Amino acid sequence: MINSDTIWRDLSAVREKAPLVHNITNFVVMNVTANALLALGASPIMAHATGELDELLGIVSALVLNIGTLDACWIESMGTAAAAAGKRGVPIVLDPVGAGASRLRTETSLRLIQIQRPAILRANPSEILALAGASGATKGVDSLHRPEEAGEAARRLAKQWGCVVVASGATDFLTDGTTDVRISGGTAMMPRITGMGCTSTALVGAFAAVSASPLQAAAAGMAVMKVAAEMAAEKASGPGTLQVHFLDALHNLTQDDFVRRLGAVKDGGALVLSAKGAAAYQPRAKP
Amino acid sequence: MINSDTIWRDLSAVREKAPLVHNITNFVVMNVTANALLALGASPIMAHATGELDELLGIVSALVLNIGTLDACWIESMGTAAAAAGKRGVPIVLDPVGAGASRLRTETSLRLIQIQRPAILRANPSEILALAGASGATKGVDSLHRPEEAGEAARRLAKQWGCVVVASGATDFLTDGTTDVRISGGTAMMPRITGMGCTSTALVGAFAAVSASPLQAAAAGMAVMKVAAEMAAEKASGPGTLQVHFLDALHNLTQDDFVRRLGAVKDGGALVLSAKGAAAYQPRAKP
Amino acid sequence: MINSDTIWRDLSAVREKAPLVHNITNFVVMNVTANALLALGASPIMAHATGELDELLGIVSALVLNIGTLDACWIESMGTAAAAAGKRGVPIVLDPVGAGASRLRTETSLRLIQIQRPAILRANPSEILALAGASGATKGVDSLHRPEEAGEAARRLAKQWGCVVVASGATDFLTDGTTDVRISGGTAMMPRITGMGCTSTALVGAFAAVSASPLQAAAAGMAVMKVAAEMAAEKASGPGTLQVHFLDALHNLTQDDFVRRLGAVKDGGALVLSAKGAAAYQPRAKP
Repeated sequence: MINSDTIWRDLSAVREKAPLVHNITNFVVMNVTANALLALGASPIMAHATGELDELLGIVSALVLNIGTLDACWIESMGTAAAAAGKRGVPIVLDPVGAGASRLRTETSLRLIQIQRPAILRANPSEILALAGASGATKGVDSLHRPEEAGEAARRLAKQWGCVVVASGATDFLTDGTTDVRISGGTAMMPRITGMGCTSTALVGAFAAVSASPLQAAAAGMAVMKVAAEMAAEKASGPGTLQVHFLDALHNLTQDDFVRRLGAVKDGGALVLSAKGAAAYQPRAKP
Repeated sequence: MINSDTIWRDLSAVREKAPLVHNITNFVVMNVTANALLALGASPIMAHATGELDELLGIVSALVLNIGTLDACWIESMGTAAAAAGKRGVPIVLDPVGAGASRLRTETSLRLIQIQRPAILRANPSEILALAGASGATKGVDSLHRPEEAGEAARRLAKQWGCVVVASGATDFLTDGTTDVRISGGTAMMPRITGMGCTSTALVGAFAAVSASPLQAAAAGMAVMKVAAEMAAEKASGPGTLQVHFLDALHNLTQDDFVRRLGAVKDGGALVLSAKGAAAYQPRAKP
Repeated sequence: MINSDTIWRDLSAVREKAPLVHNITNFVVMNVTANALLALGASPIMAHATGELDELLGIVSALVLNIGTLDACWIESMGTAAAAAGKRGVPIVLDPVGAGASRLRTETSLRLIQIQRPAILRANPSEILALAGASGATKGVDSLHRPEEAGEAARRLAKQWGCVVVASGATDFLTDGTTDVRISGGTAMMPRITGMGCTSTALVGAFAAVSASPLQAAAAGMAVMKVAAEMAAEKASGPGTLQVHFLDALHNLTQDDFVRRLGAVKDGGALVLSAKGAAAYQPRAKP
């Protein structure tokens, strides 16, 4: 069972091995996600020139693709990288930013998945619904839907693509199509910082390099986000200080912090992790 | 009359409606301006692929164009977006970064204005003088001139293009060609953080989505910058902490903070807003 | 002899003259290096459109080239800028990020040097060894080698290209081929923030605009990094707060801070600067 001990072991492995995580991501968050990966203990690479991707994919342990500021050049880079990752068995974590907000974003996401199935898809509920051919009603890159609403779509996509799907939100919903995980905690101010979703995708990428399974990697990345955000919120007085203390918390996180804060319970078929601890768990309607 | 009450109402509208603000801006400030828009209460989109701009312009409430790191691809994106905004009646706020420092920047600014007249042009005095065909003596992207010196040029451009022109500086000068507004306050350390000008342009974009007039939107954006910078300066010990506290202040700003800090007086034909309050107002030579 | 007094004079010159430093650098660090240059007292320009580089190189005092997120377009921009800088006598500081990690990076670095010899090359030891045709064993953009190991390669390159070479690390090794300088200090947490190497390159660029020699400029930039990082570390509780306080420290640095913290001693042929002060100096094996 995934719990605070297994996640802590994975986090220790990231810190010890400092896996190289290759990111082809958007202009808005490049600095932020590089810093989050460094604070976690991983080693980020940001590179997109098609002429070097095959070489670089030969030395990295995970590939993070994020279409946030896509254009024809970056789409080509992401496709080239996805193919190289597939050839070399490097796990891919895909963030289909804004899927549903434009046809280009929906189609690019599907095309990248077609080139090489990602190990993990991390998205907001609107994006998942868009990809699942559901309503497609999205409000830009932010999400109009709650993660629970995207639960069925996430399970369907996970089965269809044979990957883990993460619908993130106040409570994250994760599924490999069979086993579900819900992770709550964090702070309501997280969406007031740009790129926190992209950061969670990047951290999941670091765990994909060391975890025993994609579901465990996804749970580790999302749980570490919640715990670090909660620790940061205790010191922050707004979104500016939250972002700074979030990096400190990622870096300073101890086993004690982690185990004390992250409780795990079983709720029917689903595993529920709560950054408020197991004691704070309130049963809720299933998605 | 524009005053702290009208601006507060507009700020409340931004927080309530969370308008989508589309930004095609420079690489240096993308993260910063996205965070400032989020801290204000708006929803930023950063996207530049020509193949999705028409769709995206259909769901946003304002378009911010900033030529800071322009090249042939980004100029094409900005032109396409400007045309789509014009077709759909989406207000444009243009930041002609570095106009006068190179012919490419001056010409690109003029070309974008020709494609679609912006509702508001936000620039530093050197850029405004360059656009007005004046001396063109600019020192890179920073300004050698004070806002007052650009006053006449700003009025001329505002009349010629039928838009509001903002010449920003220690005291901002705003005009729609007929009515002038001057806004003072902030902190002398603001120019020691990159992208504070670009941030003001972005905030003006958020207000353009909700305010009754472009002049009111421009005044709201510039006044909120001054007040938040002043609040941040009280907690900061240098430009690093200033930037962090600035985001906190934008997010935490209350009506009481705002009304207490922002005084308004009439000075001949001009409205004068001062983040030090009306009591601090000192009459000055008109531009 | 280079010491805290000569460096302080150069820092005062940067603050007084606010030299324009043109940066063609990577997406990850653009915001960070612009802020560091502003905090130091310089004026950054970020621009890469080939159509404006000749004009802009006519008004700037130094050019910083950083290949961190290179692609065909950016390589062309950097080549054009290097040629324009050569024509006008503008000193170039080159950061060959990731040389050795891909052929594209090694070849691009060498090609840029061929177009116009830089005044200063600032790199990590692995990159220097790669450029010197040595083992080429690099782990992405981070360094597997200590600066001392690259000492001989650095001297060889410095003589071959007639430039100053800086191999940075816990102790920086600087050489013009004849005179060596070693600079220690800073904080072990620096590599946990992305772009601190790139930031040092940018600061060296600012000093290249005012210092009496490239070696003095390089020593000034690297020493200021160490001192400011040390001051920041005293206030920081992790990499997030470290970055923020680093900018504050760059801005607030006084002559007293500087002279008190930076000691200089001669060690055989090498000058040794230590941000812990001369008293803390421990002789070490020469590279």
